[in-house]
Amino acid sequence: MTRYSFLGPSGTFTEAALLQVPGAEEAERVPASSVLSALAMVEDGSVDGAMVPIENSVEGGVTATLDAVSVAHNLHIVGESLVPITFVVASKEPMPLSGIRSLATHSHAWAQVRRWTEVTVPHAEYIPASSTAAGAQGLLAETPVADAAVCSPLVAEQLGLHVIASGIEDVSGAVTRFVLVTKPGPSPELTGADKTTVMIPLPEDRPGALMEILEHFSTRGVNICRIESRPTGHGMGDYFFSMDLEGHIQESRVADALTGIHRISPKIRFLGSYPRADRKPQQVTRDVSDAAFSAARAWISSLRHA
Amino acid sequence: MTRYSFLGPSGTFTEAALLQVPGAEEAERVPASSVLSALAMVEDGSVDGAMVPIENSVEGGVTATLDAVSVAHNLHIVGESLVPITFVVASKEPMPLSGIRSLATHSHAWAQVRRWTEVTVPHAEYIPASSTAAGAQGLLAETPVADAAVCSPLVAEQLGLHVIASGIEDVSGAVTRFVLVTKPGPSPELTGADKTTVMIPLPEDRPGALMEILEHFSTRGVNICRIESRPTGHGMGDYFFSMDLEGHIQESRVADALTGIHRISPKIRFLGSYPRADRKPQQVTRDVSDAAFSAARAWISSLRHA
Amino acid sequence: MTRYSFLGPSGTFTEAALLQVPGAEEAERVPASSVLSALAMVEDGSVDGAMVPIENSVEGGVTATLDAVSVAHNLHIVGESLVPITFVVASKEPMPLSGIRSLATHSHAWAQVRRWTEVTVPHAEYIPASSTAAGAQGLLAETPVADAAVCSPLVAEQLGLHVIASGIEDVSGAVTRFVLVTKPGPSPELTGADKTTVMIPLPEDRPGALMEILEHFSTRGVNICRIESRPTGHGMGDYFFSMDLEGHIQESRVADALTGIHRISPKIRFLGSYPRADRKPQQVTRDVSDAAFSAARAWISSLRHA
Amino acid sequence: MTRYSFLGPSGTFTEAALLQVPGAEEAERVPASSVLSALAMVEDGSVDGAMVPIENSVEGGVTATLDAVSVAHNLHIVGESLVPITFVVASKEPMPLSGIRSLATHSHAWAQVRRWTEVTVPHAEYIPASSTAAGAQGLLAETPVADAAVCSPLVAEQLGLHVIASGIEDVSGAVTRFVLVTKPGPSPELTGADKTTVMIPLPEDRPGALMEILEHFSTRGVNICRIESRPTGHGMGDYFFSMDLEGHIQESRVADALTGIHRISPKIRFLGSYPRADRKPQQVTRDVSDAAFSAARAWISSLRHA
Repeated sequence: MTRYSFLGPSGTFTEAALLQVPGAEEAERVPASSVLSALAMVEDGSVDGAMVPIENSVEGGVTATLDAVSVAHNLHIVGESLVPITFVVASKEPMPLSGIRSLATHSHAWAQVRRWTEVTVPHAEYIPASSTAAGAQGLLAETPVADAAVCSPLVAEQLGLHVIASGIEDVSGAVTRFVLVTKPGPSPELTGADKTTVMIPLPEDRPGALMEILEHFSTRGVNICRIESRPTGHGMGDYFFSMDLEGHIQESRVADALTGIHRISPKIRFLGSYPRADRKPQQVTRDVSDAAFSAARAWISSLRHA
Repeated sequence: MTRYSFLGPSGTFTEAALLQVPGAEEAERVPASSVLSALAMVEDGSVDGAMVPIENSVEGGVTATLDAVSVAHNLHIVGESLVPITFVVASKEPMPLSGIRSLATHSHAWAQVRRWTEVTVPHAEYIPASSTAAGAQGLLAETPVADAAVCSPLVAEQLGLHVIASGIEDVSGAVTRFVLVTKPGPSPELTGADKTTVMIPLPEDRPGALMEILEHFSTRGVNICRIESRPTGHGMGDYFFSMDLEGHIQESRVADALTGIHRISPKIRFLGSYPRADRKPQQVTRDVSDAAFSAARAWISSLRHA
Repeated sequence: MTRYSFLGPSGTFTEAALLQVPGAEEAERVPASSVLSALAMVEDGSVDGAMVPIENSVEGGVTATLDAVSVAHNLHIVGESLVPITFVVASKEPMPLSGIRSLATHSHAWAQVRRWTEVTVPHAEYIPASSTAAGAQGLLAETPVADAAVCSPLVAEQLGLHVIASGIEDVSGAVTRFVLVTKPGPSPELTGADKTTVMIPLPEDRPGALMEILEHFSTRGVNICRIESRPTGHGMGDYFFSMDLEGHIQESRVADALTGIHRISPKIRFLGSYPRADRKPQQVTRDVSDAAFSAARAWISSLRHA
Repeated sequence: MTRYSFLGPSGTFTEAALLQVPGAEEAERVPASSVLSALAMVEDGSVDGAMVPIENSVEGGVTATLDAVSVAHNLHIVGESLVPITFVVASKEPMPLSGIRSLATHSHAWAQVRRWTEVTVPHAEYIPASSTAAGAQGLLAETPVADAAVCSPLVAEQLGLHVIASGIEDVSGAVTRFVLVTKPGPSPELTGADKTTVMIPLPEDRPGALMEILEHFSTRGVNICRIESRPTGHGMGDYFFSMDLEGHIQESRVADALTGIHRISPKIRFLGSYPRADRKPQQVTRDVSDAAFSAARAWISSLRHA
């Protein structure tokens, strides 16, 4: 039976992300107390994969995820999920909003519903929880931690809680990105709507070093959809770039660009090519098509072996 | 009397950062429950400035900080602080490590001492706290939340706790960056070792858009010391770049580069020029010196008014 | 009375170019024996301007023109002319093609009608002349230099020669470019369809030096319509670039690009902005319009004087 | 017996260039009346190679050479020669400079000795000749064309003329470049001090098209030592770039750059890799060494076949 770890406890947005993976509903889903421990279960073989937040999360762990996946030599990204971030107020028994004296949730979630709470439940006390799901579970304890919890619709449903209010987030429409991480192996097959994640140490700390890297992408028409500079941990000066690219390692333009960058930053790490969560198909112009690369290589080869 | 807000409670690494600001020791220091509320105090005029984490934090809030400062139209960065991230184990009364059955701390801090705890106090239960300082304070409650806390040296000292172990972080040498935010106003004066923070909306989502931006920096010899792409919140497609540059808006090369970028991304926002925390003086080559800009402008002017 | 020198003698394609200049028909036109002497007449004040070939000429002098104008510090380009290159066979008295035993012309012109002559007058001897016009004039000498001449329609008409064949050039449709050179002074006014000629010494002989120059143009949307690297004469290693740009020094994008290049190559020389011979109006995108430059400067100024 | 054509007649600087080719002294050397006819002899197989001027020539033909070699599909550059350009005044019988009433030479040579002649023989009439060598030969005709000739030291020696003055060029130190052209075949072997000549049609007439081409060179550390934009002949708008690059097609950095350019300008033409005349060895940094390319390809291959 397939086993997946995820940033727990049960009912987090991360579990919602995991449930988007085909087969995950039937798989064993193992909650982990931190991103690092979810990833550690992959490394030690106790699970087949881990779902972890990579961007914009309400449950934290983003920076840790990036750094952990980037630095680990035995992890590989094989998929991504997008989850809409929406919050409900849930309680054990039905109750009016006006009756809420305390609300449990994770501090990041609390920050995202502040305007709503200040208007609607201005006198409710904030009870910090280590995750939105933990706050919800705390309602079922012998001594409940709070009157109600701010949590995901998923956990409210899983725990059989009453939803008193929903869609209470201050900014609607937000989605969070999660990635599915496994041990290294072949990348998922090319779908024509793919992403590639790489980690590129800065070759040298001088004007133009980043631009040299980007020229390798732009001369092959490879679009960058995420970039972050991250300190390497050896002081604040040295850093690496974490990037998501449009395209798949099996496409010539991606492979050729990475080949070029390997020359100037040989410690570049390939973290995986995988289907985009939004399935948006890639537009590839003629000059960076596989056919154009193939024709160019044939031409050069004919010259060199004349 | 000067008043500063900071991501509280008292004794966080953020307060340690604030204490580096000249005069902060004597100023009124107001703890805030979140980065957003610390910033809100600046906006509503109840404090003169706010110290908030911007990178690599153990207490979270980084993403929120970046987004909040970038999006707000009435905030300005006037300084940065670097704080070494080191943890102690503290308790109310002296006790041996072997006696610890439970440890309170923030989940990010917990993640950073996991190797030490697994080896040294493998059976200690983890008690989540909303910050490292809150965990430490919980030791003094009538019903203490835990036997000990993982916290900063500062809070242990402030609360008069016993330090049982120190330097327990798994990775030593880490520093976290914090920024001091005020209402808009004149930037701090040029010191020759300055940084400038800007927010640049992506002109268009196509190969080369980022490179066009970077060319404006590289043709003026302006080094980029931090870059992050951040979703604008209008769907996952559109994003902006948050960047720290070496140099000050009063230097021609910085001003000229930003002038160029304004043409392709007119919604660019200038978030402040301020002294670098590390005081590392800027190397400026002749061709991007103020003198070179001045000579070039004089030349063109003579041609246009011939 | 206005006086112009031109690469003579009378009837050359260069005189045809000069006749395109408004007022040149009534002006005094002084033939010069070489490009250098035509330019020397401008420098010593004996003429108001000189018309000289700059590209693709059948009468030579192109390289000399470029180098002379680029190096001289007291010459300025104020206009360009395009002349279709077409040849006729002309003789003093009417005669059949089959009767031609010898043909006088300049060697470059001879090269351009070789296919026609080999087919039509295969036995005609080639008599070199110092210009196409000189060959034509030689037909009128007491001892004619040849039976017929290959020359421009203009000189045949000026000398009252009989045109035996016309349009005999092997490649039809060719045009040659000429420039009108004066002493330095204000550039002709902006027309919206202008060119600018500059001379840029190579900053340093290394990969990327030329690209740095071109980045200054591309980041301002300035198109390059001609580029030539020319040795400076100090050995084969050092060289300068002679370039024609689309646009006028009075346009911000051109002025801003040249300002940028002045920093990396302070010996850059501006040789003039002048209307394009083809009157093709310039397409300028919003981000490089004068309005965009103006808005950007106003924004930076507001920041620096906050 | 090897046969070479050259831009004649005997004694031109072009023949001097040819005599630098090992074995040329013993080979049959066939003077041609124009660059095009010298090249035509290669194409029709009547000679093994042709030496023609490519830069800065006193005998013209440069533009014609570039265009002819670039456009022809059956020509290949296999070597270059550098010849110092120095002129002598030669006469059939010994005579004083003051006795010279007329001087024969090519118009380009005349332009290069104008200062000397104006000072030394101000009253001498200029007699145009179709080449410097032709002017010298004209002194031996039954009716000599002039009293003396301005020509190369070579032709004076070959014809047994008296050298009255030498080193009379106004600018000393000039050298002219010539290329040896053959039918297509394998390039000369890599020497470590090589050049490659290519012809690249402009992909599209817009800002940045040239820069895209140059980025392919700069990202592979390939230096450009000559560049010229040349009209294609289809109107003045479309053009191609003629370029000399440092390096050999058998070096990865050159081959990889040309592969990249082939994608954006598939009609690119390779005109040959050949030893530099100055034998200056190539400096190649680690990141563009063959080893770096090889390591990068191995890395990508391992990823794609994981």
